[in-house]
Amino acid sequence: MSHEISYIIDTLFIIFSFVLIIFMVPGFAMLEAGIVRTKNVTAVLMINTMIYAFASFAFLIIGYHIAFGAFENENMSKWAFVLFQMAFVGKVINIMSGGVSERARIIPLTIFAVIMAAFIYPLVVNITWGSNLLQNTIFNLSIYDLAGSTVIHSTGGWALLAAIFIIGPRVHRYGKNGAVRVIPASNIPLVTLGAFLLWIGWFGFNGGSVGSITSKENADLVALTILNTNTAGLSGAIIAGALMLIKYKKLDITMVLNGALGGLVSITAGPDLYNIYQPILIGAIGGVLVVFAVPVFDKFKLDDPVGALSVHLVNGIWGTLAVGIFASNPEEGITFIGQLQGVITIAIFAFISSYIVLFLINKIMPLRINHDEEQEGLDVNECGLEAYPEFKRAF
Amino acid sequence: MSHEISYIIDTLFIIFSFVLIIFMVPGFAMLEAGIVRTKNVTAVLMINTMIYAFASFAFLIIGYHIAFGAFENENMSKWAFVLFQMAFVGKVINIMSGGVSERARIIPLTIFAVIMAAFIYPLVVNITWGSNLLQNTIFNLSIYDLAGSTVIHSTGGWALLAAIFIIGPRVHRYGKNGAVRVIPASNIPLVTLGAFLLWIGWFGFNGGSVGSITSKENADLVALTILNTNTAGLSGAIIAGALMLIKYKKLDITMVLNGALGGLVSITAGPDLYNIYQPILIGAIGGVLVVFAVPVFDKFKLDDPVGALSVHLVNGIWGTLAVGIFASNPEEGITFIGQLQGVITIAIFAFISSYIVLFLINKIMPLRINHDEEQEGLDVNECGLEAYPEFKRAF
Amino acid sequence: MSHEISYIIDTLFIIFSFVLIIFMVPGFAMLEAGIVRTKNVTAVLMINTMIYAFASFAFLIIGYHIAFGAFENENMSKWAFVLFQMAFVGKVINIMSGGVSERARIIPLTIFAVIMAAFIYPLVVNITWGSNLLQNTIFNLSIYDLAGSTVIHSTGGWALLAAIFIIGPRVHRYGKNGAVRVIPASNIPLVTLGAFLLWIGWFGFNGGSVGSITSKENADLVALTILNTNTAGLSGAIIAGALMLIKYKKLDITMVLNGALGGLVSITAGPDLYNIYQPILIGAIGGVLVVFAVPVFDKFKLDDPVGALSVHLVNGIWGTLAVGIFASNPEEGITFIGQLQGVITIAIFAFISSYIVLFLINKIMPLRINHDEEQEGLDVNECGLEAYPEFKRAF
Repeated sequence: MSHEISYIIDTLFIIFSFVLIIFMVPGFAMLEAGIVRTKNVTAVLMINTMIYAFASFAFLIIGYHIAFGAFENENMSKWAFVLFQMAFVGKVINIMSGGVSERARIIPLTIFAVIMAAFIYPLVVNITWGSNLLQNTIFNLSIYDLAGSTVIHSTGGWALLAAIFIIGPRVHRYGKNGAVRVIPASNIPLVTLGAFLLWIGWFGFNGGSVGSITSKENADLVALTILNTNTAGLSGAIIAGALMLIKYKKLDITMVLNGALGGLVSITAGPDLYNIYQPILIGAIGGVLVVFAVPVFDKFKLDDPVGALSVHLVNGIWGTLAVGIFASNPEEGITFIGQLQGVITIAIFAFISSYIVLFLINKIMPLRINHDEEQEGLDVNECGLEAYPEFKRAF
Repeated sequence: MSHEISYIIDTLFIIFSFVLIIFMVPGFAMLEAGIVRTKNVTAVLMINTMIYAFASFAFLIIGYHIAFGAFENENMSKWAFVLFQMAFVGKVINIMSGGVSERARIIPLTIFAVIMAAFIYPLVVNITWGSNLLQNTIFNLSIYDLAGSTVIHSTGGWALLAAIFIIGPRVHRYGKNGAVRVIPASNIPLVTLGAFLLWIGWFGFNGGSVGSITSKENADLVALTILNTNTAGLSGAIIAGALMLIKYKKLDITMVLNGALGGLVSITAGPDLYNIYQPILIGAIGGVLVVFAVPVFDKFKLDDPVGALSVHLVNGIWGTLAVGIFASNPEEGITFIGQLQGVITIAIFAFISSYIVLFLINKIMPLRINHDEEQEGLDVNECGLEAYPEFKRAF
Repeated sequence: MSHEISYIIDTLFIIFSFVLIIFMVPGFAMLEAGIVRTKNVTAVLMINTMIYAFASFAFLIIGYHIAFGAFENENMSKWAFVLFQMAFVGKVINIMSGGVSERARIIPLTIFAVIMAAFIYPLVVNITWGSNLLQNTIFNLSIYDLAGSTVIHSTGGWALLAAIFIIGPRVHRYGKNGAVRVIPASNIPLVTLGAFLLWIGWFGFNGGSVGSITSKENADLVALTILNTNTAGLSGAIIAGALMLIKYKKLDITMVLNGALGGLVSITAGPDLYNIYQPILIGAIGGVLVVFAVPVFDKFKLDDPVGALSVHLVNGIWGTLAVGIFASNPEEGITFIGQLQGVITIAIFAFISSYIVLFLINKIMPLRINHDEEQEGLDVNECGLEAYPEFKRAF
């Protein structure tokens, strides 16, 4: 095949993948808007919009160059590659923002989003997928992480953990003697819609990360990657549903959907490396981890309304290690130790850098809304309007 | 064009079509969540999620092999073909589950979904699109059904009819002397969103069913198929709107959207065979059939909250016969008699096999929730949560 | 590259772009359903559905031929080209219908949609993108308008202005002494979902308007176009957010999303002509124009519930002129004067023809619902059902 044809088809393929990832913008927005209480819905939508706008912009102007150097690409249009990489950055920050919903303020979160998109995330990319300047001089990583179990999901998860340490739990979330107050999701159809838009976006995220479709081998790898991605999601949903039924005799849909998302995160490091049956087990473990991690984080009073720590952080780690377990290939440099080193290196860097930045922002402009405003809701106080003004509240 | 280029482009084309079909997952979910009463919304979302998870999984592990034999394909990545075929199976079962909403329980429906995805639907595919082992030994079908007016829509419709016979109508739906209690849709924006997501998914469903885009003839066929699919949907919506206006002086949007869906089902057997004007008539008849079939099913107390019998079963039959009327081509084996034989054969097989399986499941684990629980709503009883807990109910 | 391969890839590329544009159908529907009051939600969804059905149909049967002549295309499947062009027409009319929400009746609006899709819009296309019969004989335009800042957005905007002149503002919208009653959006998640579906659709609208992806230059142009489109949207959102914060100390999400849409409209005339930094400024001016135009239109009592005049008309003009400012290239016939002449010619034609047609329709069948019915809501009076019948209203 001529270079010209390959260039054109890969440009089309990456644009297609980019568009699928952008469906994750309304995906995260609807998921989070459905989970939080009605008094905080507009704020959550606003922060999602701000993240998309500011983080994409900061990555385009600054972050891209830290991650990859100059705008250039010989195998497809360089602008298609920029679009694809730019689509990733908002997701990292969405993971973080979702977990501090219902008490974090929009402006300081947006400032953090800019710094994360311009510097923190690009440095993570630099030492993994990117131009590797830092890696060649300072680090020596050999992590295999196709579409970002660590680079995207754990990085966002560590930033979230740092944010939760600084911001703290929602008012009245944790009572005495370990009591946890259940705060039900306010709009289940939005949760479901958001979860499936995320699922669809994942096909572009993981499929596009193969990077090229223009050989028979690559076409097979892209299709296998999408199939395995989907299988891990199915498996995570199934196991989470089964566990909920056994434990509570009820089918809690938010947990089933989080199980699916956990499965999707867990496959993301190596969907191109597995046969079509391994993702069943990997995704199932992902679903199990979600179901068991949620109460553990609550035990430590790490309040995370959307379950992002369980879905993205825990499964980001699991997914990266799974490559070392199921697809270890020392000749190609894929080892369990290499994966573990990658997980730990990124963990240290992402957590510490996020913590420092959030700590400094918090000194200048509090990340957390005050308690009266929190009780009244962020929508009125931060956005000046309600999400559903005509609907009468039941409580 | 080289085989390599054709292989790559068709892989990309089929992955694109697969992704469009997956938009039908939130499509069906939102449509049904908008139609049912608020007390049953979570359950309907849960069953849609369970069907996607379990049916796709069962088809991947068992059903695919019954339908098509081994995983193999020479014209595109075999995994792309698997993805595309796997995307179909959930739709068949969604058709069935939607029509028994508001009284069928989640677990036994999920068990049926597994059996349908693993055995019943794959056997239908085997004798039509698939490896034809059964056809060569037992049946002798010559049905033309590009994207499943019969294979998908009627099959799902017959399973639904069997389920309605066993499960019965919702409590208080039918009064004395043929009175039918109107139960209004609870969330019209979700109904509309769902219908348009289904419409968009149809482009992938029908366009992708052409199977290849890599010749000028096939590129034309794919584009013609999508154009004709859309035209039939437009036509169904227009005629349904006009009939509602004439009959009731009001524009009932749920009927207009069902008219569009009826038009889409009716074109699905042969969108590649028609000129661009025939779908206007075929889709219009589809829309008319929906408007007139809905009260007929109610007359027989076949309670179907979403109108799936009218949209999918009636129009699945009509669409298959339409090929025999408008595109009869005996030299290529397309005849009205052949289409009719196909409709009847699949009808007998799908209805009887579904009935037997549902009957047996019902003996072990009742398909229907008890009347008190039905009155209270499935959400609380099956899922342990409400769809809109913060919104005060008007009744 | 052989003609056959180019034909196939461009067919696939244009089908992909078409599908993205169709996401704008639920996009507009959800945006408008979220902005209007709950009593008018079903009507707004109905008119969006009717526009898609009737306008697409009228364009296929009549309008296409006025715009482009016979169905034919040598560079891709002619049916793919027809689909792509047909997808545009509904958008023009959506712009118009959205701005007269909450008081315009469905049937006369649908009649206008048919005339606009069959005649008015196709004549605009004829003298700009189309077969240019009229241009060669009557006009002499040299406007550059890649994806329709003028052809789509201003045309729809002028039709809306004509409609607002005839229909007038909503009851009680404007009080004495210039008081403007704020009518809050009823469902912010739907507004957000709709805006992002529109944003995604824009990638197909603008990217597909490049017309071909099958050379390295064109592949680069398509990717650049999508990148620049997105950047202008980001920039519009950012500046609108900043202005709202400065003016009101609150982050009004509807204004931020409208700022994004304004940025998207403003880039639409020439996203392929700019470098990657110019869209930052063009989109920012687009966002500023939205924020400042909204109160100006209210000052003149031009009541436009969704802000369509500010987003589409003002920015359609700005975007077209921006090409003359930032990408003037007299050798290729792109001049500020040429752009201005195009803006004015289309303005005169679109406004006068829309005004005459709407005036005549209004004589036969009033465009406006009567005041009692308006107070009660269009849903009950025009559609015979409520959008959210089970939800108790707060007022």
